[in-house]
Amino acid sequence: MSFNTFGHLFRFTTWGESHGPAIGAVVDGCPPGLAIDEGMIQPFLDARRPGQSKFTTQRQEPDQVRILSGVFEGRTTGTPISLMIENVDQRSKDYSDVALAYRPGHADYAYDAKYGFRDYRGGGRSSARETASRVAAGAVARLVIPEVTIRAYVSEIGGDMIDPGNFDEAEIGENPFFCPDPAAAKRWEKIVDDARLNGSSVGAVVECYARGVPAGWGAPLYGKLDADLAAAMMGINAVKGVEIGDGFAAARLTGEGNADPMRPPVETGPDGAPEFLANHAGGIAGGISTGQPVTCRVAFKPTSSILTPQQTITRDGQATEMFTKGRHDPCVGIRGVPVVEAMMALVLADHKLRHRGQCG
Amino acid sequence: MSFNTFGHLFRFTTWGESHGPAIGAVVDGCPPGLAIDEGMIQPFLDARRPGQSKFTTQRQEPDQVRILSGVFEGRTTGTPISLMIENVDQRSKDYSDVALAYRPGHADYAYDAKYGFRDYRGGGRSSARETASRVAAGAVARLVIPEVTIRAYVSEIGGDMIDPGNFDEAEIGENPFFCPDPAAAKRWEKIVDDARLNGSSVGAVVECYARGVPAGWGAPLYGKLDADLAAAMMGINAVKGVEIGDGFAAARLTGEGNADPMRPPVETGPDGAPEFLANHAGGIAGGISTGQPVTCRVAFKPTSSILTPQQTITRDGQATEMFTKGRHDPCVGIRGVPVVEAMMALVLADHKLRHRGQCG
Amino acid sequence: MSFNTFGHLFRFTTWGESHGPAIGAVVDGCPPGLAIDEGMIQPFLDARRPGQSKFTTQRQEPDQVRILSGVFEGRTTGTPISLMIENVDQRSKDYSDVALAYRPGHADYAYDAKYGFRDYRGGGRSSARETASRVAAGAVARLVIPEVTIRAYVSEIGGDMIDPGNFDEAEIGENPFFCPDPAAAKRWEKIVDDARLNGSSVGAVVECYARGVPAGWGAPLYGKLDADLAAAMMGINAVKGVEIGDGFAAARLTGEGNADPMRPPVETGPDGAPEFLANHAGGIAGGISTGQPVTCRVAFKPTSSILTPQQTITRDGQATEMFTKGRHDPCVGIRGVPVVEAMMALVLADHKLRHRGQCG
Amino acid sequence: MSFNTFGHLFRFTTWGESHGPAIGAVVDGCPPGLAIDEGMIQPFLDARRPGQSKFTTQRQEPDQVRILSGVFEGRTTGTPISLMIENVDQRSKDYSDVALAYRPGHADYAYDAKYGFRDYRGGGRSSARETASRVAAGAVARLVIPEVTIRAYVSEIGGDMIDPGNFDEAEIGENPFFCPDPAAAKRWEKIVDDARLNGSSVGAVVECYARGVPAGWGAPLYGKLDADLAAAMMGINAVKGVEIGDGFAAARLTGEGNADPMRPPVETGPDGAPEFLANHAGGIAGGISTGQPVTCRVAFKPTSSILTPQQTITRDGQATEMFTKGRHDPCVGIRGVPVVEAMMALVLADHKLRHRGQCG
Repeated sequence: MSFNTFGHLFRFTTWGESHGPAIGAVVDGCPPGLAIDEGMIQPFLDARRPGQSKFTTQRQEPDQVRILSGVFEGRTTGTPISLMIENVDQRSKDYSDVALAYRPGHADYAYDAKYGFRDYRGGGRSSARETASRVAAGAVARLVIPEVTIRAYVSEIGGDMIDPGNFDEAEIGENPFFCPDPAAAKRWEKIVDDARLNGSSVGAVVECYARGVPAGWGAPLYGKLDADLAAAMMGINAVKGVEIGDGFAAARLTGEGNADPMRPPVETGPDGAPEFLANHAGGIAGGISTGQPVTCRVAFKPTSSILTPQQTITRDGQATEMFTKGRHDPCVGIRGVPVVEAMMALVLADHKLRHRGQCG
Repeated sequence: MSFNTFGHLFRFTTWGESHGPAIGAVVDGCPPGLAIDEGMIQPFLDARRPGQSKFTTQRQEPDQVRILSGVFEGRTTGTPISLMIENVDQRSKDYSDVALAYRPGHADYAYDAKYGFRDYRGGGRSSARETASRVAAGAVARLVIPEVTIRAYVSEIGGDMIDPGNFDEAEIGENPFFCPDPAAAKRWEKIVDDARLNGSSVGAVVECYARGVPAGWGAPLYGKLDADLAAAMMGINAVKGVEIGDGFAAARLTGEGNADPMRPPVETGPDGAPEFLANHAGGIAGGISTGQPVTCRVAFKPTSSILTPQQTITRDGQATEMFTKGRHDPCVGIRGVPVVEAMMALVLADHKLRHRGQCG
Repeated sequence: MSFNTFGHLFRFTTWGESHGPAIGAVVDGCPPGLAIDEGMIQPFLDARRPGQSKFTTQRQEPDQVRILSGVFEGRTTGTPISLMIENVDQRSKDYSDVALAYRPGHADYAYDAKYGFRDYRGGGRSSARETASRVAAGAVARLVIPEVTIRAYVSEIGGDMIDPGNFDEAEIGENPFFCPDPAAAKRWEKIVDDARLNGSSVGAVVECYARGVPAGWGAPLYGKLDADLAAAMMGINAVKGVEIGDGFAAARLTGEGNADPMRPPVETGPDGAPEFLANHAGGIAGGISTGQPVTCRVAFKPTSSILTPQQTITRDGQATEMFTKGRHDPCVGIRGVPVVEAMMALVLADHKLRHRGQCG
Repeated sequence: MSFNTFGHLFRFTTWGESHGPAIGAVVDGCPPGLAIDEGMIQPFLDARRPGQSKFTTQRQEPDQVRILSGVFEGRTTGTPISLMIENVDQRSKDYSDVALAYRPGHADYAYDAKYGFRDYRGGGRSSARETASRVAAGAVARLVIPEVTIRAYVSEIGGDMIDPGNFDEAEIGENPFFCPDPAAAKRWEKIVDDARLNGSSVGAVVECYARGVPAGWGAPLYGKLDADLAAAMMGINAVKGVEIGDGFAAARLTGEGNADPMRPPVETGPDGAPEFLANHAGGIAGGISTGQPVTCRVAFKPTSSILTPQQTITRDGQATEMFTKGRHDPCVGIRGVPVVEAMMALVLADHKLRHRGQCG
């Protein structure tokens, strides 16, 4: 069984493979009356678009989004919004080796085990290309939560972390790594370029925060805001770990060290919300937002597409060796930044509507 | 909106608060014909039961489970299985302070922000007591996946890790910490006891593996096995981080270092499955199981219930200080072990059925 | 796969068999802060309770409902509401014939074909007893929609219809048939009593209206209010047909005859709603409520439990004859009235919340 | 909230309005490995296509379907199948009257009440054009259930019924009414043509059966096969009533008259299924298929688009009169036949997979 829909009230369903004619998403449950046009979606796709620097894959895709339904006179109608992105740069390539054997670390073997069959061209459905659909859907989600500001950035590449003291939000858009620390960005140029030149790859950590989320979104159990965020982030290709707030570091704290004390606001905030003296919790307590920034960290593995030959087996079980030909990201985490933002927006839009739906 | 159901084909819905008459779970979608009785559920509840050592809360609950439906002549009928556990030790206590002010780090403030109202007795619905329902449901899930062996254990308490070289599965049941390293268990006695005596608390990391999962469970996107595991684990009270396989450590590896090469099995395994030379992926590639052990790591924060007074606000916005009275776990992660196992079983049972459902 | 949950935002899950220790429902998604106690649920169960006249089954069940969770200080908390009804009158009986052969018209053969196994005592899960859980859940649903008045009644028994000219809502509660026409009620006494004395059974039609539903609940496609009502009603045991508004009679009208013209309200109604000059549509257009009364008609077949022996087969495929022993309803449609009302309430409560959830 | 997805394991989501660039459906959960191409979908769209006789709307749409994803080398891959149909004949037309006032009997007023806003061109999302998406999805569903034969036909137009004695399945495709009785088809020519010439409309009843459904599909409660069919059929535009088996007629029978006795098969059938001596139940007992043909009847109202002016109100509440300009079906039920077949296929495909999913 495949299940390509995410969300409860604000839902999206994606479709498409990297080498088919197009990919897309159907956004269902979007409230009516929101101003929207393709120009409000395109910038997010442009941020995710490959081929913009030597640090990402050289596949060239314009990634032009078209809105096929759900919009009338520049506003959402409340009916499904169909978004389509045509595939353009499906470079003719010889995939016979991928057809015959399983690339280690990729989903090839697992797909065949599940379906007995796979579209082996460019990873098919499991290609990172699918994330363009999420980014398009996420742009719609942002319209539902105008009170929220979402920002993601890379905090670590190949084990080299940013210096929190250098954090400058304005720098994020100023380098090809979505890096808020210019010094780190400088160092990463060499790390990523070395990986690229060696046909190797490196992992990365992406951090994301959402400011302006009011207290009260989420639910105590199962419909938890943090559980839904975890699923959203772990569902991104190449992600292997998710943290909310302090994450694994919280496991090393004492109760005192992990406390998020509150006091009355010095100046009365929105709804008289309290002032928090810390945010170890990442803005979520008991599955419900507290009004603090919602924060998460996401670990991207190094892509398995490398030039070093590795042991593997053919479809009929024989030993062989494989390496990855073709254009690939030396650090997939970089282009994960707009995807992480999109998933954050999609989860928050859903929970905003779910919170409204509860009121009797 | 609350949403207390988990799973697609094998689903469970839990209900109940710590100070109501009972808690429970309804398991729906369980296949028919499985041998079951209360004796097959009780041992898992006993493992989670509080009050078994000085290292966990002293609340005394027999946690006797009753099967109220869905079973006939000792076998599941395919209809909903209603499981109920009566609350016994609802010690009469003065909750007036919790009613009037918000315990920092707890869900109190978030609940009031969401619902305008909360059951303040013992945490109400957000109490760790609810996890007994999950453990009971998880015991049913195990019956659906007899081919799978699930084991969880504590690998770190208060920042003190086990030595992988000392790992001995047989030790897990031999100490009050579910610790596979006897030397670490010895050290943890002091760590946890100190926290208890100081009215403090410490965090923990729980690791879990599932052996015997065949290749092919899961789905490439959104219905991913790892995304569902992430939601399941992050949905456990006090959890702040989830890793699959190498998790965040993978972000520090190169593509070569993170590779999981395959070769033909030395001796023909089940279904001629390949032999993997590493398992950085934690048994999941592209959202689908590979046939290797499925592994995850889960970070539990230190409980926020501590004796040190902390700044907080009252329901009407005034500054105050609070500390936690009553019986609490100095390290909630310990009793998280059976819960992590239960969630692993619940996710795998669901995906086994989903995989079967796909076959045309 | 069984799937015992109904609804999207306001959901309920039922469990239990007629001969187990109890039956019940978990209501999830109920808004917080609603005043509730068992006394607000019990009257609806009492209306459905068997054994109140000679025209319904003589099984004697007090059907006392207990609230096990989700309520604090007399108000809903927004968490799951667990409702339990103990089974009392499980008269010891010989079910060996039902175990060995399939009662025609019952679900016996279909259950065995599906599950390979069934709880044959009193119909097990397919017993009409399960509808008590729905009635209890429906009573909670009514609290969510205080603006709506729901009333169902029997309009036809054994082919004998009420005279619309005699319709008197006040009469519905004054006879054992929920009949709004006293003359028809008089005639039905003989029809039903004859069926009872002959060990036969008769069918019935139940009609239901909901007044006070504002315009705008529902959705244009798939989430249609009428589609959800159809599923809700067809899901009641013994129901074989559902009509909204004029139903099948509309298929015999012309466009002119089926028109529901509108005009400005003579006196300004709520929200300046128009005045409709007819209601062929049953208060729903394009899947969305129009502000008129929502009306439906539901056909109940005669129960298959009759004394006349019928041809059937045994579990091992041999020809045999069976008749139904034990206590049964000569006209199950009568006790269907509170169930139809409950399902109407459950669907409307869900759609009220869904409508709120859409607002951006 | 809109909710445009139908089904649990075999799901489809439709999108698109009559006057947008395209409409379509995403089919998710389709098993892998099924042979498929556009030529297997197109014939069903051709059967639904308007403009094929003077008895249906003169809108001319080629309704060419394109498969955009989910298929590789002529077989389904198990990933989402995106189907798109471009809108071609969006005749430029003056919709200013529909923008300003509400067409009675249409969803115009309800849409505005719900969304505060609507796409008034040609009915927008509520246009019957959307059913092309369902027919395309239904064609995919048929591939999942090759063992089942589905056939629908019109049994009644404008109150004029077929003579069951004249029933000839071979005639269904031989006339523009999908009528199995040639004599009735002859009479209907005049009925429908008169309605067309008078700018009026007539209702219709569509009947549908599915042969070859094995015993065991469905579930006892809520996931009932008949409840899902009822939702599927009532969700078709203009449908106001649904019956399974004898439907409302069953309410007029006695238990003896409604019995479906069984006997051992004269010749051993598949799985030794019994021979039924009647099929009042329409092939479903207790929500589960019995192995008999699954039968249902669906009532279509006359379209509300007629030339006779009717009282209505403008968007700002003033009295006015309206009649429908443009091209419309004098009897929408006729083109409902392929849609009813599609919905039957979609429900059965879903339940086949759900039944498989249950097996432990």
